[in-house]
Amino acid sequence: MKKYLIALAAASGAGAALAQSSLTLFGVVDAAVTYTKGSGPGSAHKTQLSNSGNMFSRLGFRGTEDLGGGYSANFWLEMGLQNDSAQGFPSNTNNQASGNGPAGVLSFNRRSTVSLAGPFGEVRLGRDYVPAFWNTAIFDPFGTGSGIGANQIYFSGLGGLVAPTGTRASNSIGYLLPASLGGFYGQVMYAMGENDSNSVLPGTLVSNRHDGDHTGARFGYQGGGLNVALATGRTRYASGDLRVTNLGASYTFDASLMNLKLTSELYKESKGTTDAKGVLVGFQLPIGPGEIKASYARYRLEPAGALLKPTSSKLAIGYVHNLSKRTALYATIARISNSNGASQALSGAITAPNRASSGTEFGMRHMF
Amino acid sequence: MKKYLIALAAASGAGAALAQSSLTLFGVVDAAVTYTKGSGPGSAHKTQLSNSGNMFSRLGFRGTEDLGGGYSANFWLEMGLQNDSAQGFPSNTNNQASGNGPAGVLSFNRRSTVSLAGPFGEVRLGRDYVPAFWNTAIFDPFGTGSGIGANQIYFSGLGGLVAPTGTRASNSIGYLLPASLGGFYGQVMYAMGENDSNSVLPGTLVSNRHDGDHTGARFGYQGGGLNVALATGRTRYASGDLRVTNLGASYTFDASLMNLKLTSELYKESKGTTDAKGVLVGFQLPIGPGEIKASYARYRLEPAGALLKPTSSKLAIGYVHNLSKRTALYATIARISNSNGASQALSGAITAPNRASSGTEFGMRHMF
Amino acid sequence: MKKYLIALAAASGAGAALAQSSLTLFGVVDAAVTYTKGSGPGSAHKTQLSNSGNMFSRLGFRGTEDLGGGYSANFWLEMGLQNDSAQGFPSNTNNQASGNGPAGVLSFNRRSTVSLAGPFGEVRLGRDYVPAFWNTAIFDPFGTGSGIGANQIYFSGLGGLVAPTGTRASNSIGYLLPASLGGFYGQVMYAMGENDSNSVLPGTLVSNRHDGDHTGARFGYQGGGLNVALATGRTRYASGDLRVTNLGASYTFDASLMNLKLTSELYKESKGTTDAKGVLVGFQLPIGPGEIKASYARYRLEPAGALLKPTSSKLAIGYVHNLSKRTALYATIARISNSNGASQALSGAITAPNRASSGTEFGMRHMF
Repeated sequence: MKKYLIALAAASGAGAALAQSSLTLFGVVDAAVTYTKGSGPGSAHKTQLSNSGNMFSRLGFRGTEDLGGGYSANFWLEMGLQNDSAQGFPSNTNNQASGNGPAGVLSFNRRSTVSLAGPFGEVRLGRDYVPAFWNTAIFDPFGTGSGIGANQIYFSGLGGLVAPTGTRASNSIGYLLPASLGGFYGQVMYAMGENDSNSVLPGTLVSNRHDGDHTGARFGYQGGGLNVALATGRTRYASGDLRVTNLGASYTFDASLMNLKLTSELYKESKGTTDAKGVLVGFQLPIGPGEIKASYARYRLEPAGALLKPTSSKLAIGYVHNLSKRTALYATIARISNSNGASQALSGAITAPNRASSGTEFGMRHMF
Repeated sequence: MKKYLIALAAASGAGAALAQSSLTLFGVVDAAVTYTKGSGPGSAHKTQLSNSGNMFSRLGFRGTEDLGGGYSANFWLEMGLQNDSAQGFPSNTNNQASGNGPAGVLSFNRRSTVSLAGPFGEVRLGRDYVPAFWNTAIFDPFGTGSGIGANQIYFSGLGGLVAPTGTRASNSIGYLLPASLGGFYGQVMYAMGENDSNSVLPGTLVSNRHDGDHTGARFGYQGGGLNVALATGRTRYASGDLRVTNLGASYTFDASLMNLKLTSELYKESKGTTDAKGVLVGFQLPIGPGEIKASYARYRLEPAGALLKPTSSKLAIGYVHNLSKRTALYATIARISNSNGASQALSGAITAPNRASSGTEFGMRHMF
Repeated sequence: MKKYLIALAAASGAGAALAQSSLTLFGVVDAAVTYTKGSGPGSAHKTQLSNSGNMFSRLGFRGTEDLGGGYSANFWLEMGLQNDSAQGFPSNTNNQASGNGPAGVLSFNRRSTVSLAGPFGEVRLGRDYVPAFWNTAIFDPFGTGSGIGANQIYFSGLGGLVAPTGTRASNSIGYLLPASLGGFYGQVMYAMGENDSNSVLPGTLVSNRHDGDHTGARFGYQGGGLNVALATGRTRYASGDLRVTNLGASYTFDASLMNLKLTSELYKESKGTTDAKGVLVGFQLPIGPGEIKASYARYRLEPAGALLKPTSSKLAIGYVHNLSKRTALYATIARISNSNGASQALSGAITAPNRASSGTEFGMRHMF
């Protein structure tokens, strides 16, 4: 079969000519063998081939067109991959549970935007990360993959990270500050649930016309090794708004301290009358061609008037061995402890209330 | 993440060498903020982020191989995008309602063909536009996007444009005349519903073995500013065939008349014992880097023996501001009026019978 | 619309530089007009536009990165296409019937792997062919397309070729021997069903925690015109394991015998207490720019204790006319005979027990 090779432009004169207008095909394929177990009555363990232990697997198409005068037009289409089983992820049409597509289908769920950028910043239209998700993505040493190290899915019982607008929002209008603000950065987003103006909750007269409307903002500063950002978001629901606020910070020491990077995040979410709080601390330490990283996260659910506040804490330690800039092997161990009735388990396992779940993961990540 | 850039061949010697055999990645991402409203009892309005207001959003792969002697082999795979929510469009397996895929999934619904072209013309196999749709696509100044300007979806109550074979047909064999006929052009298509030879309507003994079989043809002439084409199509259904016939024409004046382009279409469809008729007139006027365009369309349903013939008319005016050949900003206003019981509303709105619906749209379109 | 052309690197200096690290977009679009019929009471015939008569239609992205020292990192994402109707194929999440995705959706069902290769061989993670399928793919002159010539789908009543793990398995870990073993080759695979450790068959206490676990291996030798391979696979199910074993061989004569290639395969499968056996013989004969090929296959179901062993035999003859290395026209005729109660029919037709089904196919295949 005769094949076409897509030219690697970075090393060629043609590439230089394309620096300002370009079309890029990119992606990540990351797979791991994962073993997770629970403990106590009814607990279960599982060995599986999982995906995205180090970085989320994806396939994307993006491009930029130089319009002159510092302006550019841009598009970005990026689909998430469950490459262990050759599937993707559905998107969501209306930022509400009713808008989820069929499980496993391909979509450009990770990002689907067209934007105009210039000296004023950037205006983006489409589906994109909500501002408040960025802190969890950036200040967790294990990032946002679905591996056992990443804290995202264990870190949000109320859905601030896993609800339809927990990570991304469809039908959004975003504005991002320009990059030239001396280290300050920021963005705001408004996304629409697109319900009819006379829509009501099924079986009631309660208007839900604003269900799925999301408002979010994030502002931060990066400079001299420090990166700190405050973010917040609210998604309206007639059954109770979902609110998320978080503060993330990291500090990267210089070579005299082995370029150690410390990271932390404070996280708060509420849905209706229930609150929840989380905290995460971690570090990343370069070691030769690799990196050691660890995180400790704690999450507590605070139902209004409840005597017990279910609490889970999670410890994860990992090593990433870079075979090249694009390819790495990695190993992770993680453990979740539960108290006050909580029963969170690592993905694939089932654990009893107040019992622990632990797991190990060995994988390979390749970027292109 | 190290990225590969796909070389822009047009500007390079390599590109010239590829002029006859090529592989092309292409697409459109178009998003707009749209407000539409209805009037009268039960009416509803909506503000939404919509897609495809100026051109239909898409992602495609196509290629041509020079076989020598004027012959070429070609393929074309093109998926429609709902980029506001990162989804696509299902295709249809059998040109019947039963063959629609799950809502929102990605497919190469817009076109999926392999073809052999040569001095004799072109033979295409797969899923493609039906011939009769081309007139609506070409002679509507607002094209075939899903924006409030385009007339397609308001222009066909019987389904001649929105039925499974209204726009495209699967399982088709198409023949297109060669380009060398002094301005005359034409094409025919036969597409198969692929029912079993002993298939019957559920619960009956009535054969529906030919349901979904489509036959269509289009012939036209283009020259000296004039473009005119007649097209027709029939899709067989045991419950009543769907027939569409239309005549489109446009005339583009020269620079002394500012390159004004006038367009028009006459449209007729019937399903079983119900007829419907439509008419469209419009213009496109280049103004500096932009273009003003407008259309007026009228559609009347004529059920056999009915006293009232529900009638809708639609007026749309738009301005497209080109930032480059690939990128444009646009604004459109539109209004639908109803009489004789009709209640058509602009997409997203609900209007009462005999009442009007109006809307505005501001968007950005980027091609790659 | 301004288009980007993907550079054909094979002919350029840039391509040479990319020989070791590359990103490739590739595919096949193959469509045919197929007529098949059955005979006897209740039989049905059909004319359809089919896909993949010569090669399976597909769209893929794959790449390799040279890591030095003979090592490389690789990814491969390949989706199957039903290009007659612009759809794809779902994948399967757990190697069990419950894990099939919605019909017709796109997925990277054909292959979705990341791998590390080196002097030791290759370790692959993801969804890939099961080892035992390769013999059917390679030793059937009509390959694995869905055309009427290919024997795959008529060759396995118990599902050894059409069950969730008949062709490919998800969640797999594969190891392939290096290419430098003097003509010997081989691979092993372990794939996981990923059921919970305490999962039971619905409504029972019978554990099905291992349902969908697949183990397979294939070893062969190629040299001096000969290619021979033995393969086996087992998929565990609480309701009865599915076992497949086959032996394939081919011999290609030299120019003095017109480069005639003879092929054959012995095939055995069992599910629970039912056995089945198959045999295939065929040839491929180059004729000028084309090739004549034929196959005869016989398949017999042997239910435990049954008096009758339903048997089907199939004869297929085809001609492939190459217009170039990438593009071909082809024609195939095929006939299935049934006895002992069997009623297999060519795709699209229905035939009565012990009656024959026959068909013809004319198509075009284009690779890119």
